[in-house]
Amino acid sequence: MLPDQENPVTDLDQTESWDLLAGSDLGRLAVSVGDQPEIFPINYLAHDGVVLFCTAQGSKLVNLTINRRVALEIDGYTDEYAWSVIVHGTARTLESGTEIEAAAQLPMHSWIPTLKYVFVEIAPQKITGRRFALGPAPERW
Amino acid sequence: MLPDQENPVTDLDQTESWDLLAGSDLGRLAVSVGDQPEIFPINYLAHDGVVLFCTAQGSKLVNLTINRRVALEIDGYTDEYAWSVIVHGTARTLESGTEIEAAAQLPMHSWIPTLKYVFVEIAPQKITGRRFALGPAPERW
Repeated sequence: MLPDQENPVTDLDQTESWDLLAGSDLGRLAVSVGDQPEIFPINYLAHDGVVLFCTAQGSKLVNLTINRRVALEIDGYTDEYAWSVIVHGTARTLESGTEIEAAAQLPMHSWIPTLKYVFVEIAPQKITGRRFALGPAPERW
Repeated sequence: MLPDQENPVTDLDQTESWDLLAGSDLGRLAVSVGDQPEIFPINYLAHDGVVLFCTAQGSKLVNLTINRRVALEIDGYTDEYAWSVIVHGTARTLESGTEIEAAAQLPMHSWIPTLKYVFVEIAPQKITGRRFALGPAPERW
């Protein structure tokens, strides 16, 4: 259901949410270590039911081993609607040579044109999305 | 210093980072409750050294009272560079009538055209930013 001024926020179903995720490659990843939330922009690839990204050895993201729970958010907008999709899942770094070679063949785009040696896979546990009708807020007072 | 292919990532100083924050109004807020990271897109206003946003009564964001530590990220790009600014700080909901009235006068824009009654203020503790030269990744293998 599309949102309108009566129902300015509507939920996206899982298929719509996944399609938006798969159609984008830039998201923001939230992680938490010792109750301190952290957020990072990442270039990712949604592929075969999982989300993959790569990061540098020694980067903060390698700390994911401390708390593997992550939340990934992407958003966008058209003239009429804004939308946001959030994936909750668990992250693991790819360790086996086979997995790493397979990931390295994928068309992953990155903001940072450097060599990056750690691939991280997010296994989604929940994917949710919402669409917002854009419009002026009503008067508050 | 602007990044280039030799130094593809450079740090932004505090003034550059704050200016980018103040020049935007859409960010993503990471919070953490019980080691579960959560992320939300928010419309915010950077004003007078703090970051303000408003949210609905009863929303998940009101849970900020459980863990007030937050991280806010914004990003953007031009043809040559991408940039990302991250604010770490603590959040509190505005409680006094005077504060709420002052916040309600500010030009806060929102994706969701509904009445929203809780104003949240983030007091920044650290603001960092990076600029990325856009370019192709070198061959990995």
